[in-house]
Amino acid sequence: MSNKLPKRSEDFSLWYNELVKNAQLADNSGVRGCMVIKPYGFAIWELMKEQLDKMFKETGHQNAYFPIFVPKSLFEAEEKNAEGFAKECAVVTHYRLKTDPEDSSKLIVDPDAKLEEELIVRPTSEAIIWSTYKGWVQSYRDLPLLINQWANVVRWEMRTRLFLRTTEFLWQEGHTAHATKQEAIAEARQMHDVYETFTQDWMAMPVIKGYKSDSERFAGADDTFTIEALMQDGKALQAGTSHFLGQNFAKAFDVEFQTAEGKKEYVWGTSWGVSTRLIGGLIMTHSDDEGLVLPPKLAPYQVVIIPFLNKKKAEQNEMLIAKANEIRDELVQFGIRVQVDTDITKRPGFKFAEYELKGYPVRMVIGPRDLENDQVEIARRDTKEKSLQNIDGIGTHVNDLLNEIQDSLFNKAVSFRDTHTTEVTTFEEFKDILDTKGGFISAHWDGTEETEELIKDATKATIRCIPLDAKEVAGVCVFSGKPSKRRVLFAKAY
Amino acid sequence: MSNKLPKRSEDFSLWYNELVKNAQLADNSGVRGCMVIKPYGFAIWELMKEQLDKMFKETGHQNAYFPIFVPKSLFEAEEKNAEGFAKECAVVTHYRLKTDPEDSSKLIVDPDAKLEEELIVRPTSEAIIWSTYKGWVQSYRDLPLLINQWANVVRWEMRTRLFLRTTEFLWQEGHTAHATKQEAIAEARQMHDVYETFTQDWMAMPVIKGYKSDSERFAGADDTFTIEALMQDGKALQAGTSHFLGQNFAKAFDVEFQTAEGKKEYVWGTSWGVSTRLIGGLIMTHSDDEGLVLPPKLAPYQVVIIPFLNKKKAEQNEMLIAKANEIRDELVQFGIRVQVDTDITKRPGFKFAEYELKGYPVRMVIGPRDLENDQVEIARRDTKEKSLQNIDGIGTHVNDLLNEIQDSLFNKAVSFRDTHTTEVTTFEEFKDILDTKGGFISAHWDGTEETEELIKDATKATIRCIPLDAKEVAGVCVFSGKPSKRRVLFAKAY
Repeated sequence: MSNKLPKRSEDFSLWYNELVKNAQLADNSGVRGCMVIKPYGFAIWELMKEQLDKMFKETGHQNAYFPIFVPKSLFEAEEKNAEGFAKECAVVTHYRLKTDPEDSSKLIVDPDAKLEEELIVRPTSEAIIWSTYKGWVQSYRDLPLLINQWANVVRWEMRTRLFLRTTEFLWQEGHTAHATKQEAIAEARQMHDVYETFTQDWMAMPVIKGYKSDSERFAGADDTFTIEALMQDGKALQAGTSHFLGQNFAKAFDVEFQTAEGKKEYVWGTSWGVSTRLIGGLIMTHSDDEGLVLPPKLAPYQVVIIPFLNKKKAEQNEMLIAKANEIRDELVQFGIRVQVDTDITKRPGFKFAEYELKGYPVRMVIGPRDLENDQVEIARRDTKEKSLQNIDGIGTHVNDLLNEIQDSLFNKAVSFRDTHTTEVTTFEEFKDILDTKGGFISAHWDGTEETEELIKDATKATIRCIPLDAKEVAGVCVFSGKPSKRRVLFAKAY
Repeated sequence: MSNKLPKRSEDFSLWYNELVKNAQLADNSGVRGCMVIKPYGFAIWELMKEQLDKMFKETGHQNAYFPIFVPKSLFEAEEKNAEGFAKECAVVTHYRLKTDPEDSSKLIVDPDAKLEEELIVRPTSEAIIWSTYKGWVQSYRDLPLLINQWANVVRWEMRTRLFLRTTEFLWQEGHTAHATKQEAIAEARQMHDVYETFTQDWMAMPVIKGYKSDSERFAGADDTFTIEALMQDGKALQAGTSHFLGQNFAKAFDVEFQTAEGKKEYVWGTSWGVSTRLIGGLIMTHSDDEGLVLPPKLAPYQVVIIPFLNKKKAEQNEMLIAKANEIRDELVQFGIRVQVDTDITKRPGFKFAEYELKGYPVRMVIGPRDLENDQVEIARRDTKEKSLQNIDGIGTHVNDLLNEIQDSLFNKAVSFRDTHTTEVTTFEEFKDILDTKGGFISAHWDGTEETEELIKDATKATIRCIPLDAKEVAGVCVFSGKPSKRRVLFAKAY
């Protein structure tokens, strides 16, 4: 095996990077902080996108497309209620290059082609979209607007990591406008639920649903709902957010509507998004020291069939390949994504390692003796269990097995998450757990930004969320000793 | 009808713009030259994308994603063999904004955040992709690379028109690398064929296949294959191009591979793309003075069912709606995309105009008398023919009708194209036809860039292509009188 990975237990971060590269998911590019998503990584993104898009459409949303550039003045309008928004972004100042008069092999920015107003490459599209909605909304009859966009966005990140934090990334951003506050809140919560369903049922990645503290909330939002997942190194990953925007953007961009009663009111808004970061979460939730482990629902190929070929036995090879194709055809009938590997130039051992690295959920091997006995050897990627299986009824068997793997991965991740969620009562315990075990720490907090900040400075842990199901239980803050109403979840995070 | 359009015969250009806006396809944005693609327009793009993506995958291609930014130095490498490439592009020079120290409500570009090397928002991705391929290709075993990308690109256009020419647009760009010249040429021609199949069979838009003259060829290509369509105003539209790149980009970016015999050779390349411009072509090929006419295969909804509701007759309405839903369910079984319009607040006349404007291929109306007679009234958008149809067997009938409409639109467009393709022998005739009838002009040309340029200066017509099926027939150039080997196609173009 040429692509031996570092062990997770020794250097999780290096393991992750090497895995992303060796499994051909993505690579760094020549452009600072930007990644190249390679075909195998992109195929996972396509499966995610297809399912999410279906769920968005089933909940009444339509796709549209808005400009990549945001004029600087729109950010100024937004700034009024979003002081905290990051200003690290890509700024377009000119619209032409020209040949360098001093060296005709070089290009320079043409100083005569300076823009009157600078354009920002969208870090998110609230500003451009709400400035557009102004023209779309006059009356309550124009509402709700339920729109989603699949797009690339750019944030000038100082420290980048493939999928998890890159200067450019791909995402979807939903932007909705409503006549009433209740309807907007219901929408933000509905999309929060959609994200939970997707991450749990498709990615097999359990999440905690909650809302953000004031300091972690999106700058333009009244409430930010989040789903938080736990990675194998005990760090949390914010996997998706859904914002109830109140009337903040409507006021910033003057989006009013006439009610059925003839009154003028500001529109209520939401926005919600998930990104290629999810691929990072998928990897860090399930994969092991041999490589990627993919939940069947998001595996580009769910099964690889490897006939055991022998360079000296052409006739036997033909029969093996014919049988492999026959099995493939049966699996395809079940909607299973199958690859048959008939490359005779590579040894089986090499192939096994390669498909393990790439996380194919099921490997099926068929040799001459299997042909005689009408059976195949099946290996699960997740548990590495092998079994012999009769070819008769193979479609049903593999279909059931894939469902079992999907469930098993989810259950394993839930169990990891639960054993790495610790209730603490003292700050000593808090620090101790964080250093030794990691994971989510459930602790009382006095509700102040000051305490939150002091805990972060002391431990690097932040409040990941206030869980939606957190019970009101009186207690004392783990740090300040002041009264607290409920436990919140802390963790170090990506 | 509130959204009355100008007539095509009076002002084709105004008709086009109003149609795009009134039919809710797209709109200009606050960002110079960039459009907002509205949900209805984007739904057409999604249908196009879905089919093209399927065709790309069936021909062995995979999707990937490359950075939106191209460092300036990569353009310098490319410039060596692509002097002609436009330098009008969006240039990112800074990575941060900051609050204006003189006015805290304003943002300014932070002068301390100047990039060492400027980044260009991709106008096309050959440079960034070939600089990446350098790291992917060592041996003949790594070839071919058959990769496609769906992306947004930016070209700083001075005069823009919705869909047809915008600063930012959406497209796909295929970029392939091959071990041999023959294989690369075969790939470029294969994708040329794919584009022909798509535009003709799906868009019902006939195209002429040909290759470009030297002056119209993509700057980095050895050969540019094009499909050219004819719009209703007699102007041509370049609908898609497929480039055989020779070894030009391999040499510019030093992409070599080791052959099976152990020699080092430069890789052969192709690139090919179609864009949201196709939506403009779709509109200008089929639509009429009442609005959009969509070929069924690309219509977001192929059928609208309108029950004839009466505010005073609740019980009757219920029966009508139940029947409409029953018909819808039957049509859905045939894979037909159906909308049922039960909005009682709008008059039928208003609705008819609205669905005509939006180009729904089939309108079905069901009133109380129809219920009794077990029939519906069906109206075709393209011919405006109406007929009564028995509800029994409605699915088969509508399915056949949609196929008939698809074919009929194509045949009508072919007939228009053919009657607007004129062979001329003198330059007087050339100018006369161009002024009076427009369309394609088939004329002998001496093969020189000088003549091409002089004809363009005199008439604004350019060589759209040298048709692949052009016969070698000796003649004399329509302009210079010098010898010519074959006729080529001229037209004014978008």
